[in-house]
Amino acid sequence: MILEAGYLYITPGREAEFEVAFAEAAPIIASMKGYIRHQLQRCIEIKGKYLLLVHWETLEDHTVGFRGSPEYQTFRAKLYPFYDPAPTIEHFETAFSNPSD
Amino acid sequence: MILEAGYLYITPGREAEFEVAFAEAAPIIASMKGYIRHQLQRCIEIKGKYLLLVHWETLEDHTVGFRGSPEYQTFRAKLYPFYDPAPTIEHFETAFSNPSD
Repeated sequence: MILEAGYLYITPGREAEFEVAFAEAAPIIASMKGYIRHQLQRCIEIKGKYLLLVHWETLEDHTVGFRGSPEYQTFRAKLYPFYDPAPTIEHFETAFSNPSD
Repeated sequence: MILEAGYLYITPGREAEFEVAFAEAAPIIASMKGYIRHQLQRCIEIKGKYLLLVHWETLEDHTVGFRGSPEYQTFRAKLYPFYDPAPTIEHFETAFSNPSD
């Protein structure tokens, strides 16, 4: 299992609209091969900052399967207009988990 | 439920040693009031970068309870020597979750 993660910074004043769009886009990503689960976490200290967490079965399910799909273009078009700047998305593997993953 | 999160950057060459120290420090944080679970996620693209994720029942369980405790001093002393620079830790609440949290 792989974790896709990154901070998202939303154009000031568009946070509520972004959260609605994110929820609307959920079925797109949730329908993809290798998708396990995803979350959008809202920062308490910094308005407009979010942490995106998406779990995939493999790295390629995200980087090749999803990013290479027509569904990704729809997903991206729905959410990218809210980002300022464009996010840096990285991938992580579990080094430690309590309870175990 | 609150998510404590932040990127950790480890002094180059000390990653394996840090991961051992992190596992050894786990019982300290896991014994605290309001602690739910925690993970250390290792970045695939950038060596020495990690994502720390700790779930607490309330914000104050972390910011007041844990950070104000003698246990925190032990935890901090065990892990801070590996950080370069010192991490920025923030708190998040769930804006969206699939499946629901």
